Formats: sequence, structure tokens, C-alpha cells
Amino acid sequence: MRRQINVALIGYQFMGKAHSNAYRQMPRFFESDAVPVMKVICGRNEAGVKAAAAKYGWEEWSTSWEEVVRRKDIDVVDIVTPGDSHMPIAVAAAKAGKTLLCEKPLANTLGEAKRMLAAAQKAGVLHMICHNYRKTPAVALAQKLIADGQLGKIHHFRGTYLQDWPVDPEFPLYWRFDKAKAGSGALGDLASHVTDLARFLVGEITEVSAALETFVKERPQVDNPKKKGKVTVDDASLALVRFANGAVGTIEATRFAPGRKNYNRFEINGSKGSLVFNLERLNELELYLRDDPAYAQGFRNIMVTEPVHPYWKWWPVGHVIGYEHTFTHVIYDLMQAIAGNRQPSPNFEDGVKNQALLAAMEKSSQTRKWVKI
Amino acid sequence: MRRQINVALIGYQFMGKAHSNAYRQMPRFFESDAVPVMKVICGRNEAGVKAAAAKYGWEEWSTSWEEVVRRKDIDVVDIVTPGDSHMPIAVAAAKAGKTLLCEKPLANTLGEAKRMLAAAQKAGVLHMICHNYRKTPAVALAQKLIADGQLGKIHHFRGTYLQDWPVDPEFPLYWRFDKAKAGSGALGDLASHVTDLARFLVGEITEVSAALETFVKERPQVDNPKKKGKVTVDDASLALVRFANGAVGTIEATRFAPGRKNYNRFEINGSKGSLVFNLERLNELELYLRDDPAYAQGFRNIMVTEPVHPYWKWWPVGHVIGYEHTFTHVIYDLMQAIAGNRQPSPNFEDGVKNQALLAAMEKSSQTRKWVKI
Amino acid sequence: MRRQINVALIGYQFMGKAHSNAYRQMPRFFESDAVPVMKVICGRNEAGVKAAAAKYGWEEWSTSWEEVVRRKDIDVVDIVTPGDSHMPIAVAAAKAGKTLLCEKPLANTLGEAKRMLAAAQKAGVLHMICHNYRKTPAVALAQKLIADGQLGKIHHFRGTYLQDWPVDPEFPLYWRFDKAKAGSGALGDLASHVTDLARFLVGEITEVSAALETFVKERPQVDNPKKKGKVTVDDASLALVRFANGAVGTIEATRFAPGRKNYNRFEINGSKGSLVFNLERLNELELYLRDDPAYAQGFRNIMVTEPVHPYWKWWPVGHVIGYEHTFTHVIYDLMQAIAGNRQPSPNFEDGVKNQALLAAMEKSSQTRKWVKI
Amino acid sequence: MRRQINVALIGYQFMGKAHSNAYRQMPRFFESDAVPVMKVICGRNEAGVKAAAAKYGWEEWSTSWEEVVRRKDIDVVDIVTPGDSHMPIAVAAAKAGKTLLCEKPLANTLGEAKRMLAAAQKAGVLHMICHNYRKTPAVALAQKLIADGQLGKIHHFRGTYLQDWPVDPEFPLYWRFDKAKAGSGALGDLASHVTDLARFLVGEITEVSAALETFVKERPQVDNPKKKGKVTVDDASLALVRFANGAVGTIEATRFAPGRKNYNRFEINGSKGSLVFNLERLNELELYLRDDPAYAQGFRNIMVTEPVHPYWKWWPVGHVIGYEHTFTHVIYDLMQAIAGNRQPSPNFEDGVKNQALLAAMEKSSQTRKWVKI
Repeated sequence: MRRQINVALIGYQFMGKAHSNAYRQMPRFFESDAVPVMKVICGRNEAGVKAAAAKYGWEEWSTSWEEVVRRKDIDVVDIVTPGDSHMPIAVAAAKAGKTLLCEKPLANTLGEAKRMLAAAQKAGVLHMICHNYRKTPAVALAQKLIADGQLGKIHHFRGTYLQDWPVDPEFPLYWRFDKAKAGSGALGDLASHVTDLARFLVGEITEVSAALETFVKERPQVDNPKKKGKVTVDDASLALVRFANGAVGTIEATRFAPGRKNYNRFEINGSKGSLVFNLERLNELELYLRDDPAYAQGFRNIMVTEPVHPYWKWWPVGHVIGYEHTFTHVIYDLMQAIAGNRQPSPNFEDGVKNQALLAAMEKSSQTRKWVKI
Repeated sequence: MRRQINVALIGYQFMGKAHSNAYRQMPRFFESDAVPVMKVICGRNEAGVKAAAAKYGWEEWSTSWEEVVRRKDIDVVDIVTPGDSHMPIAVAAAKAGKTLLCEKPLANTLGEAKRMLAAAQKAGVLHMICHNYRKTPAVALAQKLIADGQLGKIHHFRGTYLQDWPVDPEFPLYWRFDKAKAGSGALGDLASHVTDLARFLVGEITEVSAALETFVKERPQVDNPKKKGKVTVDDASLALVRFANGAVGTIEATRFAPGRKNYNRFEINGSKGSLVFNLERLNELELYLRDDPAYAQGFRNIMVTEPVHPYWKWWPVGHVIGYEHTFTHVIYDLMQAIAGNRQPSPNFEDGVKNQALLAAMEKSSQTRKWVKI
Repeated sequence: MRRQINVALIGYQFMGKAHSNAYRQMPRFFESDAVPVMKVICGRNEAGVKAAAAKYGWEEWSTSWEEVVRRKDIDVVDIVTPGDSHMPIAVAAAKAGKTLLCEKPLANTLGEAKRMLAAAQKAGVLHMICHNYRKTPAVALAQKLIADGQLGKIHHFRGTYLQDWPVDPEFPLYWRFDKAKAGSGALGDLASHVTDLARFLVGEITEVSAALETFVKERPQVDNPKKKGKVTVDDASLALVRFANGAVGTIEATRFAPGRKNYNRFEINGSKGSLVFNLERLNELELYLRDDPAYAQGFRNIMVTEPVHPYWKWWPVGHVIGYEHTFTHVIYDLMQAIAGNRQPSPNFEDGVKNQALLAAMEKSSQTRKWVKI
Repeated sequence: MRRQINVALIGYQFMGKAHSNAYRQMPRFFESDAVPVMKVICGRNEAGVKAAAAKYGWEEWSTSWEEVVRRKDIDVVDIVTPGDSHMPIAVAAAKAGKTLLCEKPLANTLGEAKRMLAAAQKAGVLHMICHNYRKTPAVALAQKLIADGQLGKIHHFRGTYLQDWPVDPEFPLYWRFDKAKAGSGALGDLASHVTDLARFLVGEITEVSAALETFVKERPQVDNPKKKGKVTVDDASLALVRFANGAVGTIEATRFAPGRKNYNRFEINGSKGSLVFNLERLNELELYLRDDPAYAQGFRNIMVTEPVHPYWKWWPVGHVIGYEHTFTHVIYDLMQAIAGNRQPSPNFEDGVKNQALLAAMEKSSQTRKWVKI
């Protein structure tokens, strides 16, 4: 019989919904070597967490993460709270010997991120960071093609993550605009996805030149819309980057691109070909190969829904999947790692490296110089 | 407390997987007035249905649909078996007073379809046909735009459903190539979706001129691949159609279009604008309006993921959903109809009308003349 | 020195402008073996033709085609008048021993078309029909790929030509809505392009089932907009077709598709791959090959602007050309044929075959049966 | 009668071909107030320039630009030679009182560019720089939409110009890889187009942080392919930019993007909407407007071929034009400016400002800091 893995989920908002769905769905489609049991969901607000437990299918709920992370019957602690609480929860859970899964970015500061990694390493526990877009079949295919050398030597990475939800200056000043809570704005929320994909696909970034910008400096307060409060995070972040392997790149994230809803797009150019991905059409991958016959070269639009493609245990070819299953694949990989007793990928080491990148971008935007990682 | 609706699912293959998923997921995302309980799944093969029950989350399994449809505790009988068994199951379930949900096409012949409708009407039960693509948010939006008059008078419907899985002549002769089992080939499997969408979006079709074609006449037998057997269904079906409202249309379905995986696409042209949908990019709808300023007219690509859009109870805007949730929306509509004690839409009347269309297309392909419905 | 070929152009409206441009431009980009001299342009309206001569660069002008076609110094007579005058002009020019180039469709009736071919054959002159879209680099590449067997056995042709200019019912009743002048509506104007491409790419069509439709039956008269006159041609024409090689097809042309400006699109599916072309993006060709590795199959979008591509004597790769140069390539092919003293392709034989197809479609729309060619 | 303007073209390679075509074609389609006369073409190589004169339609040819620019009968001197010779020719022609048209970038250094502007101003002559992409109908429409305020306050400019011709390391070391001749690589050749469009559409750039990169450091020499020589220009240039109006931007140009043939693409995001253009599909412009109804917002793909669109004097709607006519529109604007005796736009002032930007980018890539313009 397959091993049962008891999970505690700390947090129950958007990411709580997404992770719950993944735990529930993964075993219905994948033959994983370990199976998650949705034991307990945890949140500060009793009414909220109770409703979430019922709605999302958790056996129990709790308002104390401190108690939950110490429970003997819990195997995995999954952290989906705002960034300022990642560190204390993760450190406590590591001390208690739990396997860790944590939402990105790993923390609000590089220092916190390093403490989390150190705690996990000291405790000798497994740890994973939820950079779910790595687990999109098309992205996983892209990584495989590059690793196989099909693109040759990589010259360019061109990554953008564009959204548009707070373009209206009357959009209220909720926690995501508060540096104390959120750490940063587009940088940590969106650019962090791009930097992770850049590392996953192209390799380590060695230096950055970045700019952060806040277009709307004040917004109506949530509690008192007639009064405005200060936005303390970036609306947009832009960077030039250099990779260890000689490639150069641009990385841009913004919440101010009308019409772009979830436009996490990258283009990679190598000496032998190119790749393009766009999260808004996540079942597709564009591939150009210079080795095709001269008369028939062109970007081919691969529908990444074939049995030969990564993670494709879903439906017949062409029957597309949605955003939600990037998380389902994370949970599959986590369970496989637990069953095999090996570190999942990406893990807190990736989280720390990514955090270092974000910190370098923030520093560069202040010093107005290139910053080495 | 919301009403609990006990469901029996007859069949456990591809559509069994899809329906199970929908029952499981719907209540996690929608606040429906009635809630399905996954009571029992039923199939001829004991090992198969037992495994399916465990994998897909059914409380019980059975190898006798005859017993299941008579069970007192069952409220809904959902039929996802091959077409030749729809009629006996539906008639028996109707007699037992069950609400019916049936996969499309309703039956393998118009006669059978009519018997099913008659049985349901005589028993006074609710009945629904699973034309799931009506429930795609983009398709539902298209229907609303047309109903609101935004396209004006409709002149053209242009529908294709293209796949490519059996292009290889060595693809084996399984049940879908057997007229006795499947009723027809691309006609019932694919064209039936297009005709249903045509009726849903434009209105009733009054006459057709059609052609059916079988490109690969013989295929290797499943049990004995060295021997070939006769293909008795169509590989492709094509038709010209006329609608009651004066519009004209083309409808084409094929399994022989390399590169088209699930290309259920329609274009509709009216006096005031046009619409385009493609199931391979099901979160998008293209809309052209002649009322836009002359310098700024163009097909706009709507990402149908906004809170104002039909069925959008999912994720933040731009966080796309997959094929599977067309079924989830079917189950939501079914539960709402049950809770409100009204006929769901589409129902067996649609199934009969659609079957009449398929029959007319088949007849036209034989008589080589236009056939009135 | 290259041979100088004196051209007389009969007609000076839209097609007169397009052909003049082609004569003027071809020698600037192509090293043809014969070179056109723009000798004389001819039209009924003296002011109009005089202005056209100056504007488009003709040495002389004339109001009498009868005189022009007999001139000793004229080598080529190019006919771009409305369809009802093609026959008399072509027959007279053939008798005078001129090489003929004629706009499509060859004539307004099959009978006239046959007389034109007979006259040309009797006179032993070269003759060409201006199906310019064959000469689009992407279309010529498509033809080559099919001829080379890269698509395998062809199963499907799916051709549409969609425009939207007269959707407004107040658009006036000019000559294109008059059967006496124009022969037909969308059928001769647009569908004729599709049927020609079908023949060029897939082969001869053996039978058709067609429907013609006129959505707006009356329109304001040009001279007296307060009064309406009868539209005597089709607004849309649709057909199912069967090819000699076993392929099936749909052909649709309409002037009532809002947003489609010049949407001459075809898709071809064979046993080994598929092709898609759209005139609105005429520098591109989509190609799908089943022989690509399983993980990397997809429609590749070929930018048909490489030196290895047909007719590419233009600019560096990716520096796209426009609609106008489909005509430039026609003139190049005509000059090469003259220099080599061989029949150009396509010629009046193609024109007659195409006309027979249009006639069969018209007849089928009346008899409501399949019509053999 | 319209004024005749005698033109001398200095240079006869790629740009000579493009400009010649524009002079020849413009009067055939536009009713300009002045008309160019193709008087003389000039080049160092007698055989080459003689052939070009014949092929492209110039009355005379010459091997001495020094003589040509002093000719009394010449009104316009058009300079399309490599960048190192722009300055002496322009200064001499200005002194001789000629109207100047010069290819971009204006010169190889900012100092030379300033001397050219000063000479033109001192002489009081008209001067224009050939930033032809401003004259693409879609780009001109974009500019108009922004100027009209339809995009609101501009927040983002995202411009890339990607090509792929020298990705192969065996591509020879011709003049474009030689800093002495070409001034720079992708920077002057490609990025200069993007910076000009950024200025045209969004406004002045105030500071930049840039990086230049040469991926292939040595290439086979043209005369002796067995021997390699040093590449002294950049293969790629990347920059972050800040605009005077508060917008931020990224600009990237490379010759190392396989599959990108002439991919000059920009996206602009404002507070009210967004715009996207791509030169490979130059007849189209994508527009998103936040003012569209909530259920129907989407990027609309405008086919910029309507009579209401800028420069559309060509063909019926949807009958697309090619790259070449961006030059035709330049010549039209030049002739209108001459006829109206006003400075054309863009002119040498734009050329100098653009050159200052390129210089700042080069400096920034060396100092590794932001550089103010």
C-alpha cells in the first residue's frame, strides 16, 4: 500500500484554495508513490478557516499554527501565508522535523530566507518551494529541450510577467501594497516567478541592473476609502541580467499593463533555436529549430498535451488543462520526493538564490549600478 | 442545509473519469443549491469498475446497471456508456423515476433517442444531455452576446471539429470504428458537438446537404493485428446547412486533420459583428463589432476569465481553466435545475433534435440530396 | 539584349491599377528573359483612361479596344474589364495573334470561356489567366510541398474567402450586384479564387453540392439612392466538393463576414501533414508534419521570405511584401513563358475548368443535388 | 502643375534599392504636391552604380558624390551610404543648399551628427532622417491614438528588434562587424529604430542603463575565410530607460534570435489601454481599451488598411502592403514638406537626439551606470 502523508496547510486564502485543490486532485490522476492526506488547515480567523476546511475538504481546522506544526501526526507543513510569516512558521516546523513546502518568494528578506534554509538543513528535513510554473508541462518540456542541447548555447532570456489589476488609482490599499506585509510589489509577487524560470531554464544569474517604479503613489485606504495612504512597494520592476554561462537577459514585471491578465511570457534564444512560452496559453510551447530544412523553418506551436510530454496524465491529446494543475504537479513531485526520501526540486536553496536575486535587484534600483549576486 | 443528491454513474471509461471529476470538483468552487453525492459507479468489468470507484472517489461500485437504476437511494442516473446502451439504461432509469443525465449523442439512432425522450416525459423526470461545450465560459458568453443582439441578424455559421488520432492506417479497429457499437464515426462523435453548438447559438437547422467519407476502409483488428477488419463508420462528415432564421452554414468534422488535436472551432457572422471560438484555446473568445470606431475595428481577443463572465467562480482573472471544467459547469447546472425542480438545458428534447440532424446528414449522404429536418 | 514585349492593357480600374503596377515593377526586381513595355492602356471613358495612362505610366491611351488589339506593335493584350466583355476582346485579340492575359473568372459563362479557349487554341497563341494568388510565395511553396509528397495523400481541402464590404444594406447597387455585368457575386468574384487554388493544390474536382444565398435582396440604386433595385447575384456561396484523388472539401465565399477583409484562407490535411494559408498574412505559411519528433510536433509558422522560397527576389529575409506582388509574379511568369515560347500556367484551360466548376456550383444550387463536372 | 524635384541618391546597395523604389512608386499612388525626378545615382564602383541606375530607373549615374552634390539641377541629396561617410556628404550638400535626406543612424558618432545638423541649420536647408518605420500606417495610427489620449498616461514602453542572420559563427566578417565602418552593431543598426519609435510614441528618454554584448568574437575574413578577424561591434544591445513623462521602458536589439527575421515589436501600456505592433505583421495593430464593456475587453487586432488610416492610398481594405512602402511614405512626406517649405519630420534634430541616446547606451555599457541624456 502507498504511504499516507499527513499534510497541514497554514493559510487559506487564494493560495490555500490552490494548494487544497492540488492535494485533492493529484491522487485522482497520478499514481504517486505517496499519497497526501488533507489533515488540517490553519488560519487566524476562526470563521474563515472553518469555512475553508469544509469547502476545500480538510479533516480539521485550527487557528494556531504553533500547535499544528508540533503535532505528531503531521508529516508536511505547507506555508501559504503572506511573506512576513514564512520564516517563523518554517523554522518552527523544521525544528519539529516536518517536511516543508513554502510559497514563493521564500521570505520577505534574504536574511529570513537564509534562516529558513539553515533551519531546514540543520533539522535534516525535506524542503520545497512552490515555484509552480516550473511544473507546467510546456515549461518542463522547454527545460528538457534546453538540457538536451536542442537550443545550443543560450544567448538570450527575455522574461516578462504582466498583469493589470490595480491600474485604476482607486483600487484600494490592501496588504499587497504594504512593504511590511508583502516585502515588495511586482518584484516579489511577479518578477520572482520570472527569475526562478530564468534560473531553471538558463542557469545562475551573476549580476543585475534594475529599476523599480511606483506609478500610483497613494491609494484609498481599505477601512476608510475617503482617505489615502502611501503605497510602499513597486508597481513595476525591470532588470538587465547577465548569466554565468554568458547569456544576457531582460526581466520585467508590472501590474500596470492593461489587457495582460497573467502574461508570464519568456523567450529564449540559443545558437541552434528559440523557445517561447506564455502562461495565458499554458498548454502551448513555441519552438524554432535552425536545423529544420531551410524552406520550412518556422516557430512551431507545440500543443503540450501528448502522452510523451511531462506530467501529461490527464486527458486525451488536445484536451487542455488549466492553471490549477501547475500546483497539482508540485504536489506530485513533493510526494515522489518524500516517497524516495530525496530533496524535492526546487527547494529552499533555490528559494534563497532567488531571494538573493530579488535583493540584488532592489539594491541596484537604489544604487543605480550593476550589482553582483 | 443544501439538498444532497445521490448519483449513480453508469460507465467508467474516459467519460466516466470526466464526469467523476466534475461531481467531485463542482462543490469546491460553486455555491450550488443542491450537492451531488458520489454514491455508486457501475460497469460490466468488475476489476475495472472497482479500480475506478477507488480512483475517482465513488462510495460503491456495481456490475449491474439494472440493479443500480432501481435503487431507492439513487436520485440521478448518469449514462456515459457507448451509444448502443443509452436507450435501455435511460428508459429503465426513467421508469424508476430518476433524474437522467446522458452523454451525447443521445443514442445511436433517432428512433432510440425518441424512445428515451418519451420515457422521460412519461415518467415526468428531469433529463439532461451532456453537451458540455455549451458550458464553456466563452461559448456561454458568445450565446449571450448573440441573444442580446450584439451581432445583429446572423448570416453565417462556420463550424469545424478536427482531430487527428487515427490518421495512421495501422491504428487498430476498436469499438469507435464499429457502427453497431458507435452508431457512426466523426458524425456522432464530433459533428454532433458542432450541430449542438449551431442550434444553441444560431437556432434550428431546417435542411442539410451532407457527405460522409471513410478514408481508411480497413484496420488491424484489436485481438489479431495481423488481420484487418472493415471500418463501418465515417472518418469525416461534411455538410451545408440552412437555418430557420435564414442563416447558412458549413459543418465539418474529421479525425483526419494532422495537427488538430481538439479543434472544435466556430465562426459566426452577423449583420453587426462576428464571433470566433476554438476549443484548443477555450479561455478565449474573439469578437468583432462593426459599431467600433472606423479606425479601431478589429477582432478583439477576450480572455473569458473575468468575474462578469459566465461560470467564472474559479481563480483570479487570466488564471485559465481546462477542458475538464466544461463538465463541472454541466453538473452545476444540473444541480441548480434539480434544486429548482425545472428541466435542465440542454435536455433530451435537444438530444432528439440533434439526433434528427445527424440522421438527416446520414440520409443526405446516401441520397445525395438536401434533406429537410 | 532581352526581348521587349509591347503590352496593351484593356481596362483601367482596380485591376488596371494592379496590373500596371506589376508591369512597372517586375523588371526592377527580376532578371526576366523578356521585358514588358507599357505601350497602351485602353478604356471607354476618355478622361479616365487618359488620367490612368499618366498616373500608371503607359506610353499611350486609347478608347477603342478594337483598334488596339489589331495594332501591329502590340505583343500582349491584357484584359481587366468586367466579365461580360472578356470574350469579345479575347477572341479578337487571339485572331490578331496576340498573347493573351485575362483576369479571372475567364468569362461570365462557361460557353464564353470555351469560346475564348477555342479562339486562342485556333490562333495558336499563348494565353494566361490571372489567378494571381497562385503566385504568392507561400502558396507556391505549399504547392511544392504537396507535389513533393510531404503531406502524403490529401484527404481534406477547406477553403474560405471572406470579405465584409457590403454588409451594410445601404451599400449601393453598383455593377458587382448586377448579374448581367458581373456574371455572379461572391461566386465569381471570390469563390473562383478558392476553386482555382483547390485545383492548383489538390487536383481536379469531380462533383459539387452547392448553395448560393442573397441576404440583402434590394439595394439603393447608384443614380437614385432613394429608390431600391434588385440584387441579382449571390452574397455568399457554399459548396461541398469531391476531388478525383479521393479528397473531400468545403469551399465558402461570402461578402458578409464582418472583420474579414481579404480572408482567403485554406487548410489542407494529408496523411502525413497539414498546411494553412491566409491571404491577410500572405508572407506566412503554417506547416504541420507528422514526421516531426513526437514531443515536438506543432504547426510551424514559416515566414516565406527566404532566398530558397519561390519568387523571393525582393528584400532581406523577414522584410515582407504586399498583395500587389502576386501580380508582379504573374507578369514575371508570363514574360518567362513568352521568352521560352511555352504556354504559361495557369492558362485558359484552367480558366475553362474553373468556369465549369462555378457553373456546376450554380446549377447545384438550383437543382439542390450533387452535380458532376 | 506640380513642382518637379530633382533627386540625387548617394549609395546604391540595399538602401539604394529601397529608396529608388520609393521614388519610383510614390507618385503612382499619392497625389503629392511635389514630384521627385530620379536624376542621378552615385557610387564609388562604376560598374555597380551603372547597373543600379539602369535597374532602378535613374536618369544618370556618377562615381563622384563631390560633384553631384554641387550640381545646380539637384534639389535633394539622399544619403544611403555606410555611416562613416554620412557627415562629409551631408555637410557638403548642405553648403550647396540642397534639401537633405539621410539614412539612420544619422552618423557613426554624436559629434558627427551634431556637425550635420549644424551645417543644415547654418545653410537653412530642409533636412530629414529616414526613420521609415514611423511611416508604417499601423505605427502612425499608434502615434495618433496616443496623442489623442486614448491610452491615457503612458507607463511602459517595451521595444525589441530581433533578427537572426549572423547566428552562425561562420558568417563572414563583412563591414557591418567593423566599428570603423558601421559605428556599432545591433545598437546602431537595430536599437536605433527602437529608440526612434520610443521617442516618436512616448517622448524623450532622459536616462539609460545599458549593456552591449558580442557573442561571437571572431569571424572568417571575407577575403580569406580560413583566417579569422575580430568583431569590433556588438551582437546585442539591451537597455532600461526612463522617459521625461515618468514612463519606464526596456529596449533590446539583437542579431542572435533564431526565427526572428525582422521582429521590430513594441508594446506600450498606458493608464487607459495598451498597444502592440510587430513589423513582421506590419499591416496590423493590436489595441486594448479599458473603456470597453467589462465583458468584452480584449486586444483587438486592427487591420490598418482602411481609408481612414494614415497613408492608406493603396488598395481595397485588407489588401496588405509590404515593408517597401514605409519608404514610399517617407518620400511622400518629404515631397509634401518641400512643397510646403517646412521642415520634414523626423529630421536631423531627431537624428541628433537619437544619436545621443545611442551614445549614452554605449557609455552606460562601459561605465556600468545609468547615464543621463
